[in-house]
Amino acid sequence: MRPVLALLTDFGTRDHYVASMKAVILGIARDAAIVDITHEVPRQDVLAGALELEACVDAFPADTVFVAVVDPGVGSTRRAIAAEAGGWRFVGPDNGVLSLAIDRAGQARAVELADPRYARHVVSRTFEGRDRFAPAAAWLARGTALDALGPPVELWTHVPVPAVRRDGDLLEGEVVRVDRFGNLITNVPADAVQPPPAHLFVEGLDVPCVDTYAAAAAGALCALVGSSGRFEIAINGGSAAERLGLGRGARVAVPCGADGEV
Amino acid sequence: MRPVLALLTDFGTRDHYVASMKAVILGIARDAAIVDITHEVPRQDVLAGALELEACVDAFPADTVFVAVVDPGVGSTRRAIAAEAGGWRFVGPDNGVLSLAIDRAGQARAVELADPRYARHVVSRTFEGRDRFAPAAAWLARGTALDALGPPVELWTHVPVPAVRRDGDLLEGEVVRVDRFGNLITNVPADAVQPPPAHLFVEGLDVPCVDTYAAAAAGALCALVGSSGRFEIAINGGSAAERLGLGRGARVAVPCGADGEV
Amino acid sequence: MRPVLALLTDFGTRDHYVASMKAVILGIARDAAIVDITHEVPRQDVLAGALELEACVDAFPADTVFVAVVDPGVGSTRRAIAAEAGGWRFVGPDNGVLSLAIDRAGQARAVELADPRYARHVVSRTFEGRDRFAPAAAWLARGTALDALGPPVELWTHVPVPAVRRDGDLLEGEVVRVDRFGNLITNVPADAVQPPPAHLFVEGLDVPCVDTYAAAAAGALCALVGSSGRFEIAINGGSAAERLGLGRGARVAVPCGADGEV
Repeated sequence: MRPVLALLTDFGTRDHYVASMKAVILGIARDAAIVDITHEVPRQDVLAGALELEACVDAFPADTVFVAVVDPGVGSTRRAIAAEAGGWRFVGPDNGVLSLAIDRAGQARAVELADPRYARHVVSRTFEGRDRFAPAAAWLARGTALDALGPPVELWTHVPVPAVRRDGDLLEGEVVRVDRFGNLITNVPADAVQPPPAHLFVEGLDVPCVDTYAAAAAGALCALVGSSGRFEIAINGGSAAERLGLGRGARVAVPCGADGEV
Repeated sequence: MRPVLALLTDFGTRDHYVASMKAVILGIARDAAIVDITHEVPRQDVLAGALELEACVDAFPADTVFVAVVDPGVGSTRRAIAAEAGGWRFVGPDNGVLSLAIDRAGQARAVELADPRYARHVVSRTFEGRDRFAPAAAWLARGTALDALGPPVELWTHVPVPAVRRDGDLLEGEVVRVDRFGNLITNVPADAVQPPPAHLFVEGLDVPCVDTYAAAAAGALCALVGSSGRFEIAINGGSAAERLGLGRGARVAVPCGADGEV
Repeated sequence: MRPVLALLTDFGTRDHYVASMKAVILGIARDAAIVDITHEVPRQDVLAGALELEACVDAFPADTVFVAVVDPGVGSTRRAIAAEAGGWRFVGPDNGVLSLAIDRAGQARAVELADPRYARHVVSRTFEGRDRFAPAAAWLARGTALDALGPPVELWTHVPVPAVRRDGDLLEGEVVRVDRFGNLITNVPADAVQPPPAHLFVEGLDVPCVDTYAAAAAGALCALVGSSGRFEIAINGGSAAERLGLGRGARVAVPCGADGEV
């Protein structure tokens, strides 16, 4: 079965950079199905990249190889790693961009990308996405064993994520992503609150919870469980981010009753 | 032969949403060739999505499966449908976004997406693109019969499109799309006007017709038959939309002589 | 082995135009791996397209078919050509957009796209990308011989590129591309300057050379050898283009010592 490779970067689509990575991949694993997760991660924003990757990893087939390149330290001494967790494989810089997705997969092991046979002949100091990460991922997709790429890495970098805290009968979290529609996506998992709450608070504003966008009146602010299983604040037919003037970091509180757990 | 799946949404490319749909498709139909028509349909603009899909459907192979998700009613009681017309298959919400393309294909039949075996195990109320439309399309691509997906639908929703009307020796229509180049694309089909007109009018302005962009002087306004067989107004090397300050809805009149028909 | 086709256009991704090209390709060469180089070349900017194509051509497999459509003369009498150089094949208008990539490949030969069997049945005057270039490329990918497409072309158009000149111990060039990160990419090849310079000048400003972005202090201006082997001016964590207010055409001078050659 042809392998699936999924790419996430902050390279944008205006330049040839993503295409150059794909070119290298196809030179090694010609039958790969390459999926673009997104290339519009805000520049060098490792947390944003890590959250976006985490949000979609579950939808991918069990043998997918993910490559994430949001890499402020390109060319420095930060390590390049590959990891395996469940059947998924991950390739990228050891700066945390992979860490949330790896954690989601459970038991994992990682290696450092050290064997030059699995990199391009000359590795540029400015474009390891093309010269180191793309070929390593393509070799994994072709069946190369993780251990062949380099020595084991016991501890890898975890990106610090905003924590959800319990305060009395409230779960307190924050907005961690804003999507194209202006939906404010929080870090509060829906399954931590049973039964579902009737409302929540964003920066002190009381917002009613609904089951689906369409259940809210047109133009009305509402909260609901988003597609990644977390609470989000939305406007049916509009942008909650614009209307409220809020973005990442906005504080959220969800009533969780006596049994709420984080 | 590997199946072709073509996707059109208003999801944008900044978030993981399109990738999550592709991930699900590849989990079911691993050898699919997935083509992005566009993901930049203006948010929840069903007519714009329907017109864009209609404009390219003829270029695709006869066994293509199209998935169109412009879906203000996601999670509501609006139906989810699949249709077959010619060899083409179509999957999306029953809100009209598929209707122009289906009509173009001629004789069609449709079913409601009802059988949960052809959806993801849990269908989120906010992301049916991933959980319902993508898997249904992938199963069709793999060879599942249309009738397996659910019960027949006799009447499906048609998106209302601006009509072309005859008034004496003029065909009166309007601008229905503006493309990236600022070309104003009308709803007046070229084959309704024989012989080709020497000029047309947009909001009363007289515009000469030419055969090709390059036949107009640099910077000159011209009208011509666009790639989808309809009249459009353009500027060789510039944006007609910007120059004229016009967009969707601008009124167009094409002299059609005594024999013009709509 | 499945063929690789790489597309570069100025069509953007908002409209169906690129998808229509892919639809035609898959109708002829169903197993093709299609790679988008970029579709955001500035409108009708042949030099920008030629430079972007040149920058990534080396990363592609030796049998890739490249299609480049930046085509102010669409529908006019400018020729449509295909070329072969090394194992690479190239398809596009004969206006120079292919010329830098062809030159990079060395010995080349070209033909005019003349045989209608390798175009769509009806070739629109406004969309040769879909009707002429896409099918010709797909037939080449399927194994059709270059000579089958039409008669030989002895001389094809070369896009004029800014030259690098030697003035005493300085190599004088200019900025030819600005990427998404605001990096100013010059036309001065790094291998023309040995040993590597300690600094260079952009519009008279003295900029220190470093090995890698990360070697510069955060926010500091630096120069380095970019991924395409040319000098570029960058800011670690910022945009050099914005900071300096410079773009294409900005003058650059690199000290090259007595042995510098162009």
